[in-house]
Amino acid sequence: MKEQTSISKATIDRLPLYFRTLRLVQDEGRDIISSEELGRRLGITPEQIRKDLASFGQFGKKGVGYYVNELKRNVGEILGLNNHWNIAIVGLGHLGAALANYQNFVTLGFNLVALFDQDPNVIGTIVNHVKVDDIKHLKAVVKERNIQIGIIAVPAAFAQGVADQLVDAGVKGIWNFAPIKMKVPDTMHIVNEDLSIGLSSLSYHITRK
Amino acid sequence: MKEQTSISKATIDRLPLYFRTLRLVQDEGRDIISSEELGRRLGITPEQIRKDLASFGQFGKKGVGYYVNELKRNVGEILGLNNHWNIAIVGLGHLGAALANYQNFVTLGFNLVALFDQDPNVIGTIVNHVKVDDIKHLKAVVKERNIQIGIIAVPAAFAQGVADQLVDAGVKGIWNFAPIKMKVPDTMHIVNEDLSIGLSSLSYHITRK
Repeated sequence: MKEQTSISKATIDRLPLYFRTLRLVQDEGRDIISSEELGRRLGITPEQIRKDLASFGQFGKKGVGYYVNELKRNVGEILGLNNHWNIAIVGLGHLGAALANYQNFVTLGFNLVALFDQDPNVIGTIVNHVKVDDIKHLKAVVKERNIQIGIIAVPAAFAQGVADQLVDAGVKGIWNFAPIKMKVPDTMHIVNEDLSIGLSSLSYHITRK
Repeated sequence: MKEQTSISKATIDRLPLYFRTLRLVQDEGRDIISSEELGRRLGITPEQIRKDLASFGQFGKKGVGYYVNELKRNVGEILGLNNHWNIAIVGLGHLGAALANYQNFVTLGFNLVALFDQDPNVIGTIVNHVKVDDIKHLKAVVKERNIQIGIIAVPAAFAQGVADQLVDAGVKGIWNFAPIKMKVPDTMHIVNEDLSIGLSSLSYHITRK
């Protein structure tokens, strides 16, 4: 693999789409796929696909296409999906429950191993085969089950407190759905998910039609 | 305003963050804010902020800062938020319910005016002050309530059918949460929200730590 420091965020954001499509193609029993077909399935130009994949190394054969298994393994490695990270969701409101039931995480190789809430009516219930633990036990459970990624799906007012607990418990990364800017150590990687961006982007485009 | 054809997706994606922060600053009663303070609040460099905003026109005064009300109004106009789009959510599972209760949409000026489901146990219930309608009546309700944006939060297997109904009903744009590539007319603007991208991006980064 080539040195990966210069890969754009846009390219990284397309890699999960490639991975998912390659998995489907693999399930169909196919060995080779062209950038043209990948493009048709994904709504991305073949040129863009070739450019994206070329930035990581040489996975295709000119005039033949990409070897499906090899490319999928490599894209998965680049994304680190072969680590099969253990993930935990904090907050079992509507959003947390939606995330706990999201099948794509399984498809990508993530393991949902813990759920946390503070509501006595929610603690002890089972969501997608995982029992909800009391948030008081977060640190112990994170260590015990070797959880590397914490997902914050609590209301904004509680989010910083949860982030502090996740940092203290030793996770490697945080995926935050609360619409606030968290204070975390520089060494902690945090991805903020902001659902208002998609809707605003749509507004931007339909305003210009 | 300048011609806006060359604005990058990354810039457009940052505009809702600017809008939201400017709204908070406005609520604090402030008239002027510097790119340095905006940067601190958002975790974005002042240089990036100045560059983003300069691509739309001249909103700041050197050595003084940005005029909060003027900049907020302009960013809102660029995003088309001053249109106060009427939105509808189709599918009241966990994700649909989470979206229906998402306060940021209100903050950005969107009006949630309709909810649709096919489950008789869900039809007629009230979610965030909106009554859930039978999906059978989608076209009539979309026309009656002048709905411009449809949000698809149904399982993948039903998503294309819902998209067809929304197109037929005459919405201007679709925000799709189902993990499939929809077939819609070229004239329809569609934004696909893919929650696995955020988690995969986090995996990419913590793999490299």
